[in-house]
Amino acid sequence: MTDSGRDGLFSGLFDRGAVGTGDAAWLQAMLDAEAGLARALERAGLAAAGAGAAVTAAAAASQFDAAELGRQAVLTGNPVPALVRALSARVPPDAREAVHRGATSQDIIDTAAMLIANRVLRAVTGDLRAAADRAAELAEQHADTVMAGRTLLQQAVPVTFGLVAAGWMISIDEARAELDNVRATGLAVQFGGAAGTLASLGSAGLAVTTLFAEEVGLPEPVLPWHTDRQRILRLAAALARACTAAGKTARDVTLLAQTEIGEVAESAGDPGRGGSSAMPQKRNPVTSVVILGCARRAPGLLATLAAASEHELQRAAGAWHAEWEPLSDLLRLTGSAASWSAELLAGLRADPARMRANLDAAGGLPLAEHLAAVLAPHLGRLAAHDLVRDAAAGAVRDGLSLPAAMLADPAASGKLAAAGLTRADLEAAVEPTAYLGTSAVLVRRALTAHRAGAAERSTSE
Amino acid sequence: MTDSGRDGLFSGLFDRGAVGTGDAAWLQAMLDAEAGLARALERAGLAAAGAGAAVTAAAAASQFDAAELGRQAVLTGNPVPALVRALSARVPPDAREAVHRGATSQDIIDTAAMLIANRVLRAVTGDLRAAADRAAELAEQHADTVMAGRTLLQQAVPVTFGLVAAGWMISIDEARAELDNVRATGLAVQFGGAAGTLASLGSAGLAVTTLFAEEVGLPEPVLPWHTDRQRILRLAAALARACTAAGKTARDVTLLAQTEIGEVAESAGDPGRGGSSAMPQKRNPVTSVVILGCARRAPGLLATLAAASEHELQRAAGAWHAEWEPLSDLLRLTGSAASWSAELLAGLRADPARMRANLDAAGGLPLAEHLAAVLAPHLGRLAAHDLVRDAAAGAVRDGLSLPAAMLADPAASGKLAAAGLTRADLEAAVEPTAYLGTSAVLVRRALTAHRAGAAERSTSE
Amino acid sequence: MTDSGRDGLFSGLFDRGAVGTGDAAWLQAMLDAEAGLARALERAGLAAAGAGAAVTAAAAASQFDAAELGRQAVLTGNPVPALVRALSARVPPDAREAVHRGATSQDIIDTAAMLIANRVLRAVTGDLRAAADRAAELAEQHADTVMAGRTLLQQAVPVTFGLVAAGWMISIDEARAELDNVRATGLAVQFGGAAGTLASLGSAGLAVTTLFAEEVGLPEPVLPWHTDRQRILRLAAALARACTAAGKTARDVTLLAQTEIGEVAESAGDPGRGGSSAMPQKRNPVTSVVILGCARRAPGLLATLAAASEHELQRAAGAWHAEWEPLSDLLRLTGSAASWSAELLAGLRADPARMRANLDAAGGLPLAEHLAAVLAPHLGRLAAHDLVRDAAAGAVRDGLSLPAAMLADPAASGKLAAAGLTRADLEAAVEPTAYLGTSAVLVRRALTAHRAGAAERSTSE
Amino acid sequence: MTDSGRDGLFSGLFDRGAVGTGDAAWLQAMLDAEAGLARALERAGLAAAGAGAAVTAAAAASQFDAAELGRQAVLTGNPVPALVRALSARVPPDAREAVHRGATSQDIIDTAAMLIANRVLRAVTGDLRAAADRAAELAEQHADTVMAGRTLLQQAVPVTFGLVAAGWMISIDEARAELDNVRATGLAVQFGGAAGTLASLGSAGLAVTTLFAEEVGLPEPVLPWHTDRQRILRLAAALARACTAAGKTARDVTLLAQTEIGEVAESAGDPGRGGSSAMPQKRNPVTSVVILGCARRAPGLLATLAAASEHELQRAAGAWHAEWEPLSDLLRLTGSAASWSAELLAGLRADPARMRANLDAAGGLPLAEHLAAVLAPHLGRLAAHDLVRDAAAGAVRDGLSLPAAMLADPAASGKLAAAGLTRADLEAAVEPTAYLGTSAVLVRRALTAHRAGAAERSTSE
Repeated sequence: MTDSGRDGLFSGLFDRGAVGTGDAAWLQAMLDAEAGLARALERAGLAAAGAGAAVTAAAAASQFDAAELGRQAVLTGNPVPALVRALSARVPPDAREAVHRGATSQDIIDTAAMLIANRVLRAVTGDLRAAADRAAELAEQHADTVMAGRTLLQQAVPVTFGLVAAGWMISIDEARAELDNVRATGLAVQFGGAAGTLASLGSAGLAVTTLFAEEVGLPEPVLPWHTDRQRILRLAAALARACTAAGKTARDVTLLAQTEIGEVAESAGDPGRGGSSAMPQKRNPVTSVVILGCARRAPGLLATLAAASEHELQRAAGAWHAEWEPLSDLLRLTGSAASWSAELLAGLRADPARMRANLDAAGGLPLAEHLAAVLAPHLGRLAAHDLVRDAAAGAVRDGLSLPAAMLADPAASGKLAAAGLTRADLEAAVEPTAYLGTSAVLVRRALTAHRAGAAERSTSE
Repeated sequence: MTDSGRDGLFSGLFDRGAVGTGDAAWLQAMLDAEAGLARALERAGLAAAGAGAAVTAAAAASQFDAAELGRQAVLTGNPVPALVRALSARVPPDAREAVHRGATSQDIIDTAAMLIANRVLRAVTGDLRAAADRAAELAEQHADTVMAGRTLLQQAVPVTFGLVAAGWMISIDEARAELDNVRATGLAVQFGGAAGTLASLGSAGLAVTTLFAEEVGLPEPVLPWHTDRQRILRLAAALARACTAAGKTARDVTLLAQTEIGEVAESAGDPGRGGSSAMPQKRNPVTSVVILGCARRAPGLLATLAAASEHELQRAAGAWHAEWEPLSDLLRLTGSAASWSAELLAGLRADPARMRANLDAAGGLPLAEHLAAVLAPHLGRLAAHDLVRDAAAGAVRDGLSLPAAMLADPAASGKLAAAGLTRADLEAAVEPTAYLGTSAVLVRRALTAHRAGAAERSTSE
Repeated sequence: MTDSGRDGLFSGLFDRGAVGTGDAAWLQAMLDAEAGLARALERAGLAAAGAGAAVTAAAAASQFDAAELGRQAVLTGNPVPALVRALSARVPPDAREAVHRGATSQDIIDTAAMLIANRVLRAVTGDLRAAADRAAELAEQHADTVMAGRTLLQQAVPVTFGLVAAGWMISIDEARAELDNVRATGLAVQFGGAAGTLASLGSAGLAVTTLFAEEVGLPEPVLPWHTDRQRILRLAAALARACTAAGKTARDVTLLAQTEIGEVAESAGDPGRGGSSAMPQKRNPVTSVVILGCARRAPGLLATLAAASEHELQRAAGAWHAEWEPLSDLLRLTGSAASWSAELLAGLRADPARMRANLDAAGGLPLAEHLAAVLAPHLGRLAAHDLVRDAAAGAVRDGLSLPAAMLADPAASGKLAAAGLTRADLEAAVEPTAYLGTSAVLVRRALTAHRAGAAERSTSE
Repeated sequence: MTDSGRDGLFSGLFDRGAVGTGDAAWLQAMLDAEAGLARALERAGLAAAGAGAAVTAAAAASQFDAAELGRQAVLTGNPVPALVRALSARVPPDAREAVHRGATSQDIIDTAAMLIANRVLRAVTGDLRAAADRAAELAEQHADTVMAGRTLLQQAVPVTFGLVAAGWMISIDEARAELDNVRATGLAVQFGGAAGTLASLGSAGLAVTTLFAEEVGLPEPVLPWHTDRQRILRLAAALARACTAAGKTARDVTLLAQTEIGEVAESAGDPGRGGSSAMPQKRNPVTSVVILGCARRAPGLLATLAAASEHELQRAAGAWHAEWEPLSDLLRLTGSAASWSAELLAGLRADPARMRANLDAAGGLPLAEHLAAVLAPHLGRLAAHDLVRDAAAGAVRDGLSLPAAMLADPAASGKLAAAGLTRADLEAAVEPTAYLGTSAVLVRRALTAHRAGAAERSTSE
């Protein structure tokens, strides 16, 4: 059986992570849960010797018919009972008592969701590491590459492209760290039986839970969590954070890649990528656009999962069912956003000359603040401020640079001359590289933090 | 090619409407759009005679490989360019100029979305009509079936089950009417070319638009709407309203079907439906639960589509891409909720005896308001109120009925005797059927409105 | 009492519409509902002559203490019971029976919400009309003002600023038309008593409902809608659509106002508006930014209201309470977005020279499609396409215009010469004004539609 | 100045936490940020001695006019510039250079938001601790109180009320722990100046940042986070988790408090609380209803904040503005939900007799699974299962208990007799207290975890 969801019209864009979340993934994860439970039961002495291995051998998704299970799901509201019947039919009679014993459908679906999440998180964190490592390279390479800072989409004071890239890096690193945390401590096996008491296992319930958790490789929770959905919400929020980090980066790239700005470009990569045969001048930021197409779905999915977290009593009447597809979608879209982000940053090309040119086109106006500070010791704070304010207005009005506008005003140039200030002094004051504040220090600090995180990971892995 | 989305683990539950929204549906709708455009171009004299028919003949989804188109979508961020190449390759050379001429990818995808919506809306409105017709039968049958009204999940004053069913009916009718409106006036062909000017068609652009709209059977909008997404939001909101109507009904059924209330039950239908082999007493309201599982996803999807409605300039960088799957999901889930609702109401069984018994178990307390009103002319308003208040407290404390508690109090029974009031008078005052206010009139009014809507439909169809 | 919500730190930005939605507005609307009910009861013969007028006279919000009512709301979960006590205390004894008779708290709060909505919608539609009228002026003035069309934030083919403005206008008009519809048919009085049967009014319930609706100036619904919340969802969706129209316009303005694009600017208006003393070159698009700050909250509020629409049985346990503030917020924010939009469009200045310059800076590349079409009759379709493709590549590489790049290539210039094509022919083909397709026709069509809508309004008003 | 938001019509319900989030809170927090910055500048040698104290002395919210600041906010899109002017006017001339030096508006608003969050989190975690401690008492007291487990709102197998309460406790504890984490590591000062480089402070930027963080008592981030909004999203998600825990508990209470179930009741508390003068039998679960009214707004607010997390370049054009009110709302509503939850659990009364009676009313059917297990060793697994299945069907059909139905069937009673099984054996098998599985162990484990968390807190505090 193929994972049909990964093979469709939109899946090249929106199902690109390394790990599937479609039918094949769900089916295998449910079977992995059933097999793990069978092994646990055998270890607990509640199933015949060999039963665990027999169920495990039978638990291959390729041997089951998802479509048929889906049809039968109508009877009970979920596909597990039909799966249990089909699985039981595939194991030797003496192993059958090991199939699903003590469990309820929700135990299997919830545990399967955790197994899928675990696999997706491993892939996502890998992709985010790659993305952050590449952002780190950009931050280092461009620590001194000056560009316009832009606030409310207007040029403000200068920044460096290294600082911009360091910002992307730290955001991705923090999102990744939270996903690592969730993967380490936020997932858990679910095992409670019909109403969370494991009554049908008598006094053996907890022992089987512990063994089940071991077998499937997930932590054991303090209590069954069938109607405590904070675990799902924590996972979903961490995924949404990764989408936020990816989306912020992609948004910046689409803005910096605008025709009129042109400061970064996505890699040509594949020769037809982002091109348009009809419009040869276009170099569409396709990767960023697709990342935004993924990331912008996270808020709605997060809201759905948060709203679905109010589970009634011992099993929710609808809220649980409302979780399955949205959680799959959020895992899939975050996986895709992370994978595309690694590709985006791997290929991103910066154009320092264009960055400088865009800034220079503003004629020193973004440095007005600095010029006033430079003039203040010579002219007094207030006079300096007024001189700069008037010159800035003149510069905008007459299309001059700020120093030129100041020198063009006889009164102003007189004051400057009296203070011994030359055109070169003015030009120096509006030189962007002289007004970068803590940019370089911040880049170094961010890189240190990034490397410390990386070092910690390599130690702990 | 099968519509793989309709054939999966969860599709029995969540993809049950009569119309597909998966890959096969999208692919065919995109091909229908291309074929309609080709016929329009031919009619406008911009393509060779026979080109429209040739493209139409080639435009069968079964002849295309969605997976391959999906892989190629990575180059451009959507599957249309690959589809255009594949379609062109399947038509005779002299018809090729009719393929996609004047169009951009968004024209095809947006028009395809409208075609899918049109098909889904037809099916959904049919299912909602069936559901409302059945609710109308329940309203009529049970116009005098008294039951407890419940506010904040506490018994309040009596209502009738007919009034409850009439409420479901009107809600479904109003949701359906809005979907009819959207289907009649809210959908539209999208045709604008690269930036909405249809420049490559010279002066023929509008004429082709009109013919294109005719060919695909959709209204022509005032302007191309590629970056005006109100149409999508209107559609989504109407779908969400249908989910609200279905969800309200399903929520009421799950509450009234509780073990301790037991006033309604879903149809046994399929013998295994809703049962539990381990727990034979259970009759799970599976249909309602699945409806809630569908309906509760509408708010998040609606939010995603609303948030994605801010499209930049002449084509959105991400917001458009974020619409495709959520709109499909919302159409699919509304289709499923509507289909399940028709089934739910067709099979719903009410238990008037249990309804009466639950109300009687409250010992007349829900009628305290009425009793006070009955006593007032005899005892004075204030005295009547105080007498009832004290008796109600006594009834709750001692587990008596309200009349019994009143008579058990010597002072109260003295006043009643003095006023010539008997136990029978008290019993009559707490008889629920005497305190139903406008219930019956409202049911009749609602049925009249329902039938008027139905008559209007049959006239207009 | 002042409407404290309108007088706070953020209310200059987010509470700017003409109509309040804060405590004062709610209190007055609840009192208006009670007063309307009293008059209806009197007209129905259920209250003493003069009782309606007496209650109406007492029902002035300024005479009540919202804070005290809010404190007492804790007892019952809503402020109505305390309000009823306070109102009763302010009317003569013989009018007291007319206060709240037959009603439940929800009747008052839901009717009050409708009254507030009615007032807000009147103001919002007025503001949207003003905004659309101004967009119409821009569309007409700039019907021939050529500018770059931008797709995925990259320059594509030319459009006109008139067409862009016409797009804003139609979007605003359609949002406004839906709000007019909702105002005309989507609001309704709510009157049902304790559980929707109006039992305490005996057989007079419906007659009082009709009179109540007349008195407060709202339509009468088929059924009480206390647990059918489609009315709220319809209203919310229409408000969200208005936010979408405002948000799309504001997003375009922020993008076109970027330092590097500079094609539009918000009005200077107030001298300090949008300026920055520290950064004199900045002209922040404050109005657009605030519109986006309002509009982007609509999706989450819409989701909250949609999720809250599943009301249990005869009164919701929580879902109703979850509606009050979000509906107020959505009304307030839409009111603000509409008001700001009217101001934005009233002051918006376009810079046709900059529009042309930005397009010219692309050296004819956006016209490559047109150039190929012009050359095709002379050189053959395929040869023309190849020539243009190669020249476009050369133009990008060498920083030349498209004609210059073509002429700089000896092979290409030879072919052109052979075909009798001159530099002037090439220049003409890349002249943007010659490649505007249906732009002008679409603008005229949109203006006609706008005026027809306006004419219809003035007739119907 | 009063915090007007805390004193309104709905604030008794929705603004009940110990900490304000309205205008007064925001204004004071912004002033605290400015004062902390002034002290930091003085410590860094960038302001005159005493300037920090002077600014701090002037920074009392009661001295400022929020309404006036709100009106002036229109000029710049936020209230900080007006606040800076007003604050500067209130400090001695030589301290003025310490006001806002190096900062931009966003530094002040973001830092203020963190200060408010810090205060709210302290209160919320306190309330959640109280709530969990009381749930722990209930869990301990009722560890052996048997009640029906309910799945899909149908009686399933038995559970204990202790286990239900332990589930609430663990959910609240885990939500609280995450809020503690966020408070310890997830908040941070924001300080970046015009574009994140702190250029106007020259090389002193980082030193001032460190001192500023110390002064306001917030962690220092690796980088300014003005356009990296993961911090906001993390905070919002943690708040939503607390709402989930509160909402789950409240939903269970509303269901268990239903008239027909009556297993728990909210405390009478205030004599008028939850009562209804018109309907004396009603004991409305007002506290739970209000909690749900708070908690259900979290998903939409979370979605708004997540969607607003895509901040452009060095300052967002709208997304930032869209955060202010929703974050305040989410803090306020979580604070209210937590405070109400502590009250709800403090007063919650369980009715063990009613719990037992509701379970007994099911006639042993919830124990069918157990009965079959008990019979299996005597009759064989399959025969036992069939016997129970048939008896269960008979019990439902004839209104008998499960043992009675089995004994009423001659064939079944014959087999039982042959196996030496008596009515007493059957009764024992359907005794709920014998089928509680791991309930007691789980309660103990949960209490241990709760106490360990509490111990850790008291150590660390």
